[in-house]
Amino acid sequence: MADEQSIKLTLTYDGSRYHGWQRQKNGLTIQEVLEDRIRIMAGEPICVLGSGRTDAGVHALGQVCHFTTRSSLRPEDFERGLNSLLPRDIHVLRAETAPPGFHARYSALRKVYEYRILNRPDPDVFLRRYIWHIARPLDTEAVTRCLDRVQGEHDFTSFRSSGSRNRNPVRHMFSAGLSGPDGGLIRITLEADGFLRHMVRNLVGTLVDVGMGKTSVEAFLRILEAGDRQQAGVKAPAQGLFLVRVCYDRDAAPLPKPCPGPGTDPA
Amino acid sequence: MADEQSIKLTLTYDGSRYHGWQRQKNGLTIQEVLEDRIRIMAGEPICVLGSGRTDAGVHALGQVCHFTTRSSLRPEDFERGLNSLLPRDIHVLRAETAPPGFHARYSALRKVYEYRILNRPDPDVFLRRYIWHIARPLDTEAVTRCLDRVQGEHDFTSFRSSGSRNRNPVRHMFSAGLSGPDGGLIRITLEADGFLRHMVRNLVGTLVDVGMGKTSVEAFLRILEAGDRQQAGVKAPAQGLFLVRVCYDRDAAPLPKPCPGPGTDPA
Repeated sequence: MADEQSIKLTLTYDGSRYHGWQRQKNGLTIQEVLEDRIRIMAGEPICVLGSGRTDAGVHALGQVCHFTTRSSLRPEDFERGLNSLLPRDIHVLRAETAPPGFHARYSALRKVYEYRILNRPDPDVFLRRYIWHIARPLDTEAVTRCLDRVQGEHDFTSFRSSGSRNRNPVRHMFSAGLSGPDGGLIRITLEADGFLRHMVRNLVGTLVDVGMGKTSVEAFLRILEAGDRQQAGVKAPAQGLFLVRVCYDRDAAPLPKPCPGPGTDPA
Repeated sequence: MADEQSIKLTLTYDGSRYHGWQRQKNGLTIQEVLEDRIRIMAGEPICVLGSGRTDAGVHALGQVCHFTTRSSLRPEDFERGLNSLLPRDIHVLRAETAPPGFHARYSALRKVYEYRILNRPDPDVFLRRYIWHIARPLDTEAVTRCLDRVQGEHDFTSFRSSGSRNRNPVRHMFSAGLSGPDGGLIRITLEADGFLRHMVRNLVGTLVDVGMGKTSVEAFLRILEAGDRQQAGVKAPAQGLFLVRVCYDRDAAPLPKPCPGPGTDPA
């Protein structure tokens, strides 16, 4: 056994089979699977701390977590070993020595989420776990106009779910955009200093109402400013949501960060 | 009840959950699921005839089958109704009245298969059911040289699995090509007047040996001409294989069809 070391993991996972990130009594979670496999390698109980929770069915292209251990295994040993022990729907992209004082949640400066919609008459049997299928054509220009206005600092109370633990509902949205449709695929990408509970899914649900003409751009802006969850649309389904990236590098920030709270509730 | 009508279905399915196309005692198959759902709509037992079998785990972007029924439901009724009754991993792309004398298997003139390889160090958790992951870089130029030589008329005995029921092992390969790697994805596309049992997977397994430098291009050509299954490489895994299209239109044929046998054994 060596001195305690702290290791940072960057992960991708297919959330379909899991009851979300956070360890719980009823149902398998990503955190539990990781902790179990790391324990096998480290030979001691392990607590893995994620950048934030992801809900059941939500996927990750680049989730980040860290753990401390007295094992003398090197980060590259963990990377190789975990990738042979983990089920095929969880993969470690990188294991590295965490910088001094690093905390996957509290050190996070920005997060990027992407929501994927398949907007065409026919579904795609291969994408059914990874998109929200909407057969009726969406007005992507109207949705883009809303996204333009979502950028900047806002009180996102209208798009937070009850049970959100963050006291401060103000977040800075560094960018909010839409690409596509490309073969029917529409991607909505959001980058902020943090997300409130279900914020991306509630936002996307309301944006889809705009795309369908049920809600006008003006009504969307009133909902955004209202600070009242009752006015927003339905929550978009979990399976279209991907946690793309968690950023820790202050230099790489595209904009100065005016809002101090790290706010890493599940989106 | 009306006179008997014959309906042609074009289907896409994710083969992951199924024991292949053909109805069998031990395990759920695509044919069985389709027949059960059509029976519910037609109100009579139904026999669905496919263009050929696909193996367990093999997918389809455009499988074709037909059935006859005395039901007076229109093709568009079957299309809409089946798509609400079928599980989400099988989808009817088109239902139409079959041309006179149409038989999904015996009328087929050409078939197109695609095999997908993810050739990069990291696997992709979202593609794990839809690709063969090969971490070591493949020499795609060498593979392409082999594919060039696979085109034309050949005795494909070297790449047929035992148990193949076709007497005639000669097939005309209209085209054989490779695209990529594109983000690591390599697609091998084969179009022929028919395929012997496991022919695509056995061919791809041997091509991957060439790509890895285990087998030279010259050795591949000797295997192709040998007519001996023992010399070829391993069979590529099922989950990378897609039945792309079945062609019935003689006018659309890219080349004259010198080999008369329809040969629609599973590839």
